[in-house]
Amino acid sequence: MTSSFGTRKRNTTQADVAKHAGVSIMTVSRALSGSGNISPDTKERINNSMEELGYVYNTVAGSLRNQSSSMVAVVIPSVNDLVFGEILSGVNSVLRPKGYFTTIGESFFDPEEEFKVIKSMLAMQPAGIILTGGIHHKPELFDLLKKRSCPILQMWDTDNLNFDYHVGPSQREVGQIVADHLIEKKYEYIAYIGAELSIDGCADQRFQSFRSRLSEAGISIETEVDENLPRQPESGKILTERLLARSPHVNAIHYLNDPMALGGLSYLFDKGLSAPKDVAVVGFNGSTQKFSIRTRLTTVDVPKYEIGKVSGEKLLALLNDEGEGQFYRSELRLIVGDTS
Amino acid sequence: MTSSFGTRKRNTTQADVAKHAGVSIMTVSRALSGSGNISPDTKERINNSMEELGYVYNTVAGSLRNQSSSMVAVVIPSVNDLVFGEILSGVNSVLRPKGYFTTIGESFFDPEEEFKVIKSMLAMQPAGIILTGGIHHKPELFDLLKKRSCPILQMWDTDNLNFDYHVGPSQREVGQIVADHLIEKKYEYIAYIGAELSIDGCADQRFQSFRSRLSEAGISIETEVDENLPRQPESGKILTERLLARSPHVNAIHYLNDPMALGGLSYLFDKGLSAPKDVAVVGFNGSTQKFSIRTRLTTVDVPKYEIGKVSGEKLLALLNDEGEGQFYRSELRLIVGDTS
Repeated sequence: MTSSFGTRKRNTTQADVAKHAGVSIMTVSRALSGSGNISPDTKERINNSMEELGYVYNTVAGSLRNQSSSMVAVVIPSVNDLVFGEILSGVNSVLRPKGYFTTIGESFFDPEEEFKVIKSMLAMQPAGIILTGGIHHKPELFDLLKKRSCPILQMWDTDNLNFDYHVGPSQREVGQIVADHLIEKKYEYIAYIGAELSIDGCADQRFQSFRSRLSEAGISIETEVDENLPRQPESGKILTERLLARSPHVNAIHYLNDPMALGGLSYLFDKGLSAPKDVAVVGFNGSTQKFSIRTRLTTVDVPKYEIGKVSGEKLLALLNDEGEGQFYRSELRLIVGDTS
Repeated sequence: MTSSFGTRKRNTTQADVAKHAGVSIMTVSRALSGSGNISPDTKERINNSMEELGYVYNTVAGSLRNQSSSMVAVVIPSVNDLVFGEILSGVNSVLRPKGYFTTIGESFFDPEEEFKVIKSMLAMQPAGIILTGGIHHKPELFDLLKKRSCPILQMWDTDNLNFDYHVGPSQREVGQIVADHLIEKKYEYIAYIGAELSIDGCADQRFQSFRSRLSEAGISIETEVDENLPRQPESGKILTERLLARSPHVNAIHYLNDPMALGGLSYLFDKGLSAPKDVAVVGFNGSTQKFSIRTRLTTVDVPKYEIGKVSGEKLLALLNDEGEGQFYRSELRLIVGDTS
């Protein structure tokens, strides 16, 4: 088939429909908004003309009158991320069947970018807003959002309650679960490897609670954190090399996330070291389990799809003024794999 | 911090701004649309009032008059997919700095769902539409889109040219590259493992060209295709088991995608078989390379981020009536890993 889209046409208007159906523009307008008495026969003629001309009733403009919209604005750190892709999928699974669409903004953990993205999205009159915790929201964002009438929900962080509702795990609990696991397994030379902690409050919270739990048990940890590396496998490799060069006695490492832990594992295998015999490895988020061939990573799994699903449900409840409580806390699950 | 979003307020209107600034509603309206003469002093007062009241000018409604919008509708099979997450990230990297937002619809390879999603999105008056190839678009979709004035671009498939522009690899070429690689490596008992080929024309095209290229070389292949399994690692495991149970002599398998190939590899290792000694394994798309610890999968890498980036650029060109040609073909790259 060759393109038949070469010549662009102007959009069909209500005037075109009116002319085609042989009625007045007012009649078409009243038929579309459902106001006024219009005979079934006339309605059918208008419908047929709309069908034939390809006219689509603009629900955004139509809905402005009623102060409602079918658009839900969602801001996540990045669309190119296993965790947020799965969460988003859960959000859509609930909102889509109810006629809502999600418009996605990316913050890249930059408060200024988040503010700009949300400000632009507000101009589209969203029915609701879903934000992601971790990022250090600008104070001006709170001012901006307080003046809005739509419900605002935060995903991922339920330790800090700033909005109408919050869905996600306790990030603090993650650090405690990993610390308890390593204590139980009697590892004594423990390290933490991470990146970008200054811009991601959730990752920092996990790290802080990991460190203080171990400190309570009399264990002080080594840390290898780089503020400028992305939270990717390659960074896990680089930081593991750096850590072991200066602290070769380390025998257990907790990584910011699973991708970084996989990078660490790959470095260990390249160097002829094995996990957990030489160094135990523990990740976080459970996003890469399904890609493992031989080595199942020990990690704390967080129910990503469920977080999205519950966020969608709670937003719908808020839209119907049915919201109760302030947060829904997702259950965390330690998966003991082959690496600890 | 406790929630200060408990009490919802109605949105600020132009009337509120007018009252606050001590001017008429008409003056506010003219200031916002840029029509009419308004003194700098009055403009500043209106701006200050807007700032203070948190009023955001509705660009969607505002732009309807000019038949343009800041929204680009994107339909992909699923947001929970490594390939389309990366593509989307490329699209956003271009559109976002130009003030455009992407609204994401998911088709799940269901033509009816795609049609419904696009119809709803059209009601939001998108500036442009980005579709994904592979899915068997309904004939009614072409009718619907032909009546629209906005540019329509298709990603992922450049073998079938149905819209204003097309960006992606030749899916046919993928099958040929893999076939040539296996011929060169002198594998003789070759199989293909896939799923959902009836609903994904791109995957089917790769499969068909893989089979016919081998057939030209005098090699007939075994196939293990399930129409009801998802294209996930677990399905790769199940289908590899099924295939080898009936055809234990197979010594090379090409999988629909990398995740399925990883599932296959994991099955082989569980059974004490190794790749490529016992069975060679080749995937497609290069989405899981970064998660490999020990075993680097042989695959055909497709430049996902670039496809998104070029799609964004070409859509902008179409919006500026600068579009030329019908398609941009992405380069494919065979990565010979440890499994062939």
